[in-house]
Amino acid sequence: MAAGRAAGSRTTAALSELLRVPEGERLDLSAYDARATPAGPANKAEALADLARMGERLADLQERLYAASTAGDRRRVLLVLQGMDTSGKGGTVKHVIGLFNPSGCRIKAFKAPTPEEQNHPFLWRIMKALPERGEIGIFDRSHYEDVLIARVRELVPRSQLGRRYGQINRFEKSLTHDGVTVIKCFLHISNEEQRGRLLERLDRPDKHWKFNVGDIEERALWPAYQEAYEIALERCSTEAAPWFVIPADRKWYRNWAISKLLLEHLEALDPQYPKGDFDVEECRQRLLAAE
Amino acid sequence: MAAGRAAGSRTTAALSELLRVPEGERLDLSAYDARATPAGPANKAEALADLARMGERLADLQERLYAASTAGDRRRVLLVLQGMDTSGKGGTVKHVIGLFNPSGCRIKAFKAPTPEEQNHPFLWRIMKALPERGEIGIFDRSHYEDVLIARVRELVPRSQLGRRYGQINRFEKSLTHDGVTVIKCFLHISNEEQRGRLLERLDRPDKHWKFNVGDIEERALWPAYQEAYEIALERCSTEAAPWFVIPADRKWYRNWAISKLLLEHLEALDPQYPKGDFDVEECRQRLLAAE
Repeated sequence: MAAGRAAGSRTTAALSELLRVPEGERLDLSAYDARATPAGPANKAEALADLARMGERLADLQERLYAASTAGDRRRVLLVLQGMDTSGKGGTVKHVIGLFNPSGCRIKAFKAPTPEEQNHPFLWRIMKALPERGEIGIFDRSHYEDVLIARVRELVPRSQLGRRYGQINRFEKSLTHDGVTVIKCFLHISNEEQRGRLLERLDRPDKHWKFNVGDIEERALWPAYQEAYEIALERCSTEAAPWFVIPADRKWYRNWAISKLLLEHLEALDPQYPKGDFDVEECRQRLLAAE
Repeated sequence: MAAGRAAGSRTTAALSELLRVPEGERLDLSAYDARATPAGPANKAEALADLARMGERLADLQERLYAASTAGDRRRVLLVLQGMDTSGKGGTVKHVIGLFNPSGCRIKAFKAPTPEEQNHPFLWRIMKALPERGEIGIFDRSHYEDVLIARVRELVPRSQLGRRYGQINRFEKSLTHDGVTVIKCFLHISNEEQRGRLLERLDRPDKHWKFNVGDIEERALWPAYQEAYEIALERCSTEAAPWFVIPADRKWYRNWAISKLLLEHLEALDPQYPKGDFDVEECRQRLLAAE
């Protein structure tokens, strides 16, 4: 019976190891090729075929995770998606999370903090959006914005910013103690790819609603954001909650890789259908006896 | 520009008219055949093929609805699912809502009220779970439990129960004034079909987690529940928020019919991509000019 298991597990499976940001090392994002396909399918057709196969397995594991929670298993998954504008956070939710049963997913897109949220510690709104046991939680942006845009735009004093990395690490560690498997993905796109995607949004009237003039101004801060990401990934890729760098210039590879990461982690959790706590034969007779 | 449109519209499309509970008439559920296929596909293969076709159209309309909300359109959809145990509320979420982009869906499964919820009016927890503009909201059970189990189990005095139908009607009307299209589906299964589905859960160890001994006791109250449903559907099928009776003994027909209802209502809303409020050519030049 899995009810006693609480700690979110780490996996040592192949892709997870390959994409994981090593602990305690200097990170240089410019050394990561955003068009790379370091493992798995070599082209889009292969990736889509593999994704369809993985979809069935993911949905099955999700159902087991949810079923186990009904018998007291506290385990759950939290997928954190971060990346520059157009890096594909929304596309990942659509194409990867779309493989799951939507009733077991808890999706939260974090925007600029509301006045109420600003009246609380930065982790307050994060806590409120956490997945319950048995669920797959998805954060489209997250508490990392509080060390990313907060750093680049100097929204808080440097001393306060410095404390946040440690606060984040302790927070995430406490989550794993409560049964949460935290999977943090940085969707790594190149500067040129972002330009192309923004231009495409301009070219297509049905994409205009996704475009903000502010995106051009943010883009001018690209080097500062890359540096902020390097620092965040360096300081917050921990044993309990590692960061993964996802090559994201190719959408099909991004979707495949994140699906594969989810699969490796869910397989490591290996959730089991709980045994019923009732007498099957007696229940059957009662059902058959009644008119 | 659709920004000014606020009222949720009603559709006069075919299936909606056919399945709609007429206003102000006595309802006799025993006259409704739960195995009927009153319109559309005649068999499972046809239904699945049509569902796949509808899926693309539904996802497109959902994206338009969401896109329109970014420009001020307050419209949204609320799908209410009610039905006896095993009637397929969860299956509908998996197979029908699974056709949408999960990021635009807000799903809430209502359980027995918590102590905090019991300290508030019965609509309090309902209000908190409403979809935001541009979203598809899904209620797996709803405020109707407060006139269903509350009636059958006599959880509140009869006078209080009697007031609730009017409260519900006024509440739902106010929702439509705020741009919510309310689609209420009663998943109608036969007593025999429920027996079969409960027996199947007993036969399959991977379904035991869905089985509760309490389900057998609830089943003994079948006639009282049917009567409670008849009264609720009679009194609360309104011009603003009609009820639909979905023949649900055949899962493929249930999924097809609810998808079709959603499609008819979304097509009636006809949401449009908003026009951008920026100078496309100027933005393009700025993007191309920067390094």
